[in-house]
Amino acid sequence: MNDKLPLTMKAAVMSEPGSIEIKELPVPKPGHNEVLVQVMAVGVCGSDLHYYEHGRIGRFVVEQPIILGHECAGFIVAAGDKVTKVAIGDRVAVEPGVTCGHCSACKAGKYNLCPDVKFLATPPVDGAFVQYLAIREDMVFKIPDHLSFEEAALIEPFSVGIHAAKRSRLQAGETVAIMGMGPVGLMAVAAAKAYGAARIIVTDLEEVRLRAALRLGATNAINIKKEDALITIKQLTDGVGVDVAWETAGNPMALQTALYSLRRGGRLAIVGLPAQDEIPLNVPFIADSEIDIYGIFRYANTYLQGIEFLASGNLDAASLITDRYPLAETREALERAIHNKSGSLKVIVYPNE
Amino acid sequence: MNDKLPLTMKAAVMSEPGSIEIKELPVPKPGHNEVLVQVMAVGVCGSDLHYYEHGRIGRFVVEQPIILGHECAGFIVAAGDKVTKVAIGDRVAVEPGVTCGHCSACKAGKYNLCPDVKFLATPPVDGAFVQYLAIREDMVFKIPDHLSFEEAALIEPFSVGIHAAKRSRLQAGETVAIMGMGPVGLMAVAAAKAYGAARIIVTDLEEVRLRAALRLGATNAINIKKEDALITIKQLTDGVGVDVAWETAGNPMALQTALYSLRRGGRLAIVGLPAQDEIPLNVPFIADSEIDIYGIFRYANTYLQGIEFLASGNLDAASLITDRYPLAETREALERAIHNKSGSLKVIVYPNE
Amino acid sequence: MNDKLPLTMKAAVMSEPGSIEIKELPVPKPGHNEVLVQVMAVGVCGSDLHYYEHGRIGRFVVEQPIILGHECAGFIVAAGDKVTKVAIGDRVAVEPGVTCGHCSACKAGKYNLCPDVKFLATPPVDGAFVQYLAIREDMVFKIPDHLSFEEAALIEPFSVGIHAAKRSRLQAGETVAIMGMGPVGLMAVAAAKAYGAARIIVTDLEEVRLRAALRLGATNAINIKKEDALITIKQLTDGVGVDVAWETAGNPMALQTALYSLRRGGRLAIVGLPAQDEIPLNVPFIADSEIDIYGIFRYANTYLQGIEFLASGNLDAASLITDRYPLAETREALERAIHNKSGSLKVIVYPNE
Amino acid sequence: MNDKLPLTMKAAVMSEPGSIEIKELPVPKPGHNEVLVQVMAVGVCGSDLHYYEHGRIGRFVVEQPIILGHECAGFIVAAGDKVTKVAIGDRVAVEPGVTCGHCSACKAGKYNLCPDVKFLATPPVDGAFVQYLAIREDMVFKIPDHLSFEEAALIEPFSVGIHAAKRSRLQAGETVAIMGMGPVGLMAVAAAKAYGAARIIVTDLEEVRLRAALRLGATNAINIKKEDALITIKQLTDGVGVDVAWETAGNPMALQTALYSLRRGGRLAIVGLPAQDEIPLNVPFIADSEIDIYGIFRYANTYLQGIEFLASGNLDAASLITDRYPLAETREALERAIHNKSGSLKVIVYPNE
Repeated sequence: MNDKLPLTMKAAVMSEPGSIEIKELPVPKPGHNEVLVQVMAVGVCGSDLHYYEHGRIGRFVVEQPIILGHECAGFIVAAGDKVTKVAIGDRVAVEPGVTCGHCSACKAGKYNLCPDVKFLATPPVDGAFVQYLAIREDMVFKIPDHLSFEEAALIEPFSVGIHAAKRSRLQAGETVAIMGMGPVGLMAVAAAKAYGAARIIVTDLEEVRLRAALRLGATNAINIKKEDALITIKQLTDGVGVDVAWETAGNPMALQTALYSLRRGGRLAIVGLPAQDEIPLNVPFIADSEIDIYGIFRYANTYLQGIEFLASGNLDAASLITDRYPLAETREALERAIHNKSGSLKVIVYPNE
Repeated sequence: MNDKLPLTMKAAVMSEPGSIEIKELPVPKPGHNEVLVQVMAVGVCGSDLHYYEHGRIGRFVVEQPIILGHECAGFIVAAGDKVTKVAIGDRVAVEPGVTCGHCSACKAGKYNLCPDVKFLATPPVDGAFVQYLAIREDMVFKIPDHLSFEEAALIEPFSVGIHAAKRSRLQAGETVAIMGMGPVGLMAVAAAKAYGAARIIVTDLEEVRLRAALRLGATNAINIKKEDALITIKQLTDGVGVDVAWETAGNPMALQTALYSLRRGGRLAIVGLPAQDEIPLNVPFIADSEIDIYGIFRYANTYLQGIEFLASGNLDAASLITDRYPLAETREALERAIHNKSGSLKVIVYPNE
Repeated sequence: MNDKLPLTMKAAVMSEPGSIEIKELPVPKPGHNEVLVQVMAVGVCGSDLHYYEHGRIGRFVVEQPIILGHECAGFIVAAGDKVTKVAIGDRVAVEPGVTCGHCSACKAGKYNLCPDVKFLATPPVDGAFVQYLAIREDMVFKIPDHLSFEEAALIEPFSVGIHAAKRSRLQAGETVAIMGMGPVGLMAVAAAKAYGAARIIVTDLEEVRLRAALRLGATNAINIKKEDALITIKQLTDGVGVDVAWETAGNPMALQTALYSLRRGGRLAIVGLPAQDEIPLNVPFIADSEIDIYGIFRYANTYLQGIEFLASGNLDAASLITDRYPLAETREALERAIHNKSGSLKVIVYPNE
Repeated sequence: MNDKLPLTMKAAVMSEPGSIEIKELPVPKPGHNEVLVQVMAVGVCGSDLHYYEHGRIGRFVVEQPIILGHECAGFIVAAGDKVTKVAIGDRVAVEPGVTCGHCSACKAGKYNLCPDVKFLATPPVDGAFVQYLAIREDMVFKIPDHLSFEEAALIEPFSVGIHAAKRSRLQAGETVAIMGMGPVGLMAVAAAKAYGAARIIVTDLEEVRLRAALRLGATNAINIKKEDALITIKQLTDGVGVDVAWETAGNPMALQTALYSLRRGGRLAIVGLPAQDEIPLNVPFIADSEIDIYGIFRYANTYLQGIEFLASGNLDAASLITDRYPLAETREALERAIHNKSGSLKVIVYPNE
C-alpha cells in the first residue's frame, strides 16, 4: 500500500436522476486480490445517459445514490497482498464486470451471463466517475505505453463489437452491414475491420457519425435520411445481400432492414436494445433463408484482443473522442452527450486532471 | 436397363388444387447418372396437403398439373450407364432435393440453400405419387433389409429434425422443448432422442400426438388445452428454462412460448412456417438473454444419419404410421390427413401394391 | 454446522509409494463457501495406482505424505455461511478439480487448463480416501435419489469420455473406434453411446473388458490378441474408416491404429498418456487425409451432463463395479486394481461403511 | 464460340521428369457448362517442381506425358451453351480442382476431400502451362480490373493459407507462428494478416524470404541459422507460447518446434508434407496441453475470400513475384525455381506473351 495515497477522493455522485454532485469520499482500500486504480479517463456510455435521464434500464433500477461511469483506464497505485499478476505502476484498462467465476455460466466461458456479476455503474454497484477505484486484479489488463488512457477506456465499447463479431462468427473476407453509428456502432466498425471484413456498410442519420465510420474502416456509408438502406445494400452486393448484419441502435426499423439485408444463410446480431419489447419480425423469411440471429449482452474474453487491436495502430480509435471534461464537470459531460448527438461522438471525463 | 419394365405406369396427378386423378404416364428413362426407383411407399407431408388445398406455399405456386409426394423409398430397377455407387436391386430411401453441386451454397455444404435445386413435388417439379421415379444416383441411399420402405420414407421428415438438432447444436445431455407434435414435430422428438437429449418436453393440443411423442422418446408431454406450457416448462427445469427449443407448428403463440421457455444463452430453432409474415418477438429478451435463433429450411447431409438411427432399432418410428392407401386412393389419403388430425399421424401411399 | 459431527476421522495416507496407513486426522472445517462432504464411495483410478507404484506422473511428484483418491460422492453434512446452492443432507457427486475461476483459461470456459487448479490426489493436494472432505460448493453436484454413490463416483472417469466426445465433436449417427477398455475406455464407450454414436467399435486384450464394453453400448468388440484391429475396423466400415477414434490406453501401437482407422476428414482424440514422450506418427497421412487430432486433459463442464446420462437409466454403469473395499483396506483395493487386470474393472472404496 | 480463336495452341509438355518441350496442340472446345480461358499467368508451384524432378508426389505418379502448372488466371474467350454465371471477356482466376459435387465430401462442404476431383497438373490431368484451358464455369472467379493476372494466379497458394486459417480457427487478435517462408508460407503470412492476427512470427533460413514475410505482414522474423526459434518465440510471448502455429515447409524439426511453441490449448496446422512418413511427436505434450492438430490438404471455398483480400489493396502480394518467363521458357522457369532458392520467391510463366 502506497503511503502517499490520500485518504479521501472526489466522486461524481448521482443522488437522483438528472442530478450529479461532486462529493468527497474515502479512498477505497483494495481487498486481498484487488488493486486500487487511479482513474485517468472514463468514457460516457449510452447506459450512463439512460440512468441519468430515466433512472432505470429494464430490470436495473436506481434506488439510491449511485456513481455512474464504467468505461475506464488508469494506473495501479496499490495492491492487495495476494495480487500477483499486475503491480503498482502498471497502466491498465479496466473491465467493469466482476464475475463470480464459479457459476455454470462462468465455467462455460460465458461469464457475461453470470447472474452474480457486479458491474460498475449498474445499480446498486458504484462506477468509475471517481478518482480511485478498487477492483479484483483479474479485471485489469496492462496496456502498452503508446496507448493513451482514453483509448484504453474505449476498449469497453470496442468489446461489444468484438463480442458481436465472435457471436456472429464474422469471417475474414465477409461483407457486413452495421446499423447505427453511435459510439457502440462506431467501435463495431473497428471490430469488423479488425476481423478482416472485406466490406463494411454502415447506416446512420448523422453525417458526422458516417464520416467517423469511414475513418474507422467502413467502406460504404448510407445516410438513411437520403437513401433507402435496403436498396443500397442490395445494390452494393449485386442483389445477394450481406453475410452478416449488426443492429446497434435499438431501432425497430433498422432491425428489420438489417434482417432483410442478409443473403440466404446470413447472420444477424442484435446489439441495440429497443425501447419497446415486441418487434414484428418476418419469421417465414428467417426460416426460409436459414438466418441465424444472435442476441448480444455485453461481452466476454475480449479485453486482450481489444488491446492488441488498438495497440497495432491500424485503428484510429482516438478520432472518436470529441469532448473532454474534468470530473468536476461530469454533469456537463453527460448533458453534452445527450444534447449534441449531431456533433459529439465520444465524451471523456478525466477524474485526475 | 431391365427388359421386363413396363412402358407405362400409374401416377396420381393433381390437375388443380383439390383434384387428383390417376393417369397412365410413360415410365421415365434414367439418364446417365440416374437410377429408376420402383416407388414402394410415399409419406403424405403437410406441404402436399398445402398444395392440395391452397395451390401454393409462399413463393412456390402450382401453375400446371403436378404430381405431389416427396417422402419416398423403393428399390432400384434400372440404372444409367455412369451409375457406380448403387445397383439394380438395392433397396433405397430417396432424398427428394436434387441440388446442382456447383453453386456457392452447395460447395459450402449448405446444399439446402441451392438456388437451382429441383425438389420433388415443389412446383414445377413432379413428385413421388407414381410407380417409377428417375433420380440422380447420389440422391438414393441404401437401407438395410430390416428397415421397411415406409420407415425409410420417414427419413425425409426425420431429416428436418436432424437438421434442427445440428443447426441448434443440440448437445447430448441437454434439455429441449419441442412445440407441435405433427409428423415433423414427432420426428423431431426422435431426432432429439437420437442426439442424446436428456429431457424432451413436448406440447400439442391432441392427446394422440402427445402419446405418440412419449413413445418416441419425449419425457414430458404438455397438452396446451389443459396446461400453460411456459409455466410447466419452467417448473420442470427448476425455473431455469430449457437449453434448446424448436417450434415446428408454425404457430405464433407457440413460437413466443418457445422463446420464453429458454434459459439465458439458450437456442431456438424455427422449423414451422407461420401463415402470416410478421410475428412480434421480444427483442430485448433475445439480446439480454443472448438467445440464438436459427431458421430451418429443409436439411442437408442427414440421410446417412437418419438411416443409422432408424436401423439401430432404438426408435419406434413405425408407430407413427396410422393410415395406409394404395396409389389409386391418393386423394383419399390426402383427405384423411387433412380431416383426421385428432387421430391420424402419418399417412402412407403405396404406389406398387 | 452439525453438532453431531466427530472431531476426528480416518484417512488412508500414503506416506511413501507402496505404503498406505490408516490415520486419525481432524475433520476439516469448511470455509465460507465450502461444504463438508461425508464421503460414501471413492473409485480407484489409474492415476492413484501410478502414484502408489511410481510416486509421480509426469511433472507431478509425490514429495510428502499424500491421501489419494479423487473419484468420489457422498452427502453434505456441514456448510460454510456463504453456501447458497446446496444444503446439508444433499447427496452429491464431487468434481475434484478446484479451479481459480479468474485466469484466462477459466474465463474462456477451458477451466481444465487452469494453472492454479487444486486437484484432489494430485501432489501436493490431498484426496478423497477419507471420511470427510471440505470442498468449494460449486464443486459438488446434486444427484437424484435413485443414483447410488458408487455410480456417482463414476461420473469422474465418465467426464473424460464426455470431454473427448465434445472435443472431437462426436455427432449423433457417427462411427467411433475406441482403443483400450480400461475404466476410462469403458466410460468413454458410455459417453459415445450417450452422444448417439451409431457404431462403437472397441479394442482390448482382455475378454472381460470387451464384454463389459458390449454391455455399455459397444456394437463391435475386437480382441487384438486374436484379430488385427485395423483390418477389422476397415471391414466393418466398408473400407471407409471411422469418423472418430479415441485412444484411451496410452499405447503407441493403439494410437497408430486409431489414426489409420480414420476416414478422410476423420478426428482423433488422444486420451491415454503413453509412457514415452516421442511417438512416431504418419504426418503425411494426417495432412493428406485432413485429420483433426485433439489432446485431452481431464474435462470441463461435464458433471451435469454425466448425472443426466446416468440418471436416465440407459447406461448400466454400475455393471463396471467389480470390487468393493472398506477404507481400512484401501491398500488392498489398490493392489487388487493393479494385479487383477484380467478380472477387475472398477474398484470402489467405501470410507464410511 | 469466338470465330477468331486459333485451332491450335502452344503447350509446355513434360514427356518425362526433367524434360519439357513446347508442343502444338489443338485448342480445347469447352463443354456445355465449361468456359475456355486464355491463360495469361501461371505460377510455378512446389508440386510442379516435385513432379518435374521426381515424377511423383506420394500416391500420384506421372506415367505419361503431362502438362504441369495449376496456379493460373486469364480471360474467358469462349463459353459452352449452358454457361450462365460468367461471360466472354471476363477476367478470371481459375480454381484448379474440378470436384464432382455429388459425393459425401462435396455435399458436406469439404470438396477438397472429393475422391473424384480432377486437379490440374496432378497425374493424369493436364495443367495450365498452355495458351488455352477449358474448365467448368464454377471453377472460374471474376477478378476486378485493378487486380493483375499474376496476382490472381497467387490466389491458389493464398488459398492454402486461408484454408489453414479456417481449419485452425485463427481468431482476430491472436498470435501465430508460421514455419517456412516458401511461397506457401509467405502467402500464409498474408492469410494470417487478412484474418487479423495480432502477431505473426515467422521462421526461415533465407533472409530474402524473411524480408518478404515482413513486407506481407509478419511482425517478427526469425532466421533459424542464427537463432533458436523456440526460445525466441517463447520470449516474444512472455513465456506463454503462441495461440496458433502452422508448419508449411514439411520439415520435421520445424514441425516439432511449431508444436512446442504453442500455449496450452493452442492449435497446430500441418500444411507442409514431410518427405518421410513417420515423424516423432511428443504425444504426452499434445494430451497434457490439449493441443489441436489439423491436417491441411489443399483448400475449399477460399477463392472469393482470396479475391476480396487481394482486391482490398492491403496485401502487397505482387512483391512476391521475382521471376518472369514466357511459355517457351517454361523449363527455364522450373529450373530457376529449383536452383535459386536464396533469391527467387515466386516464378511466373506467361503463356500468351
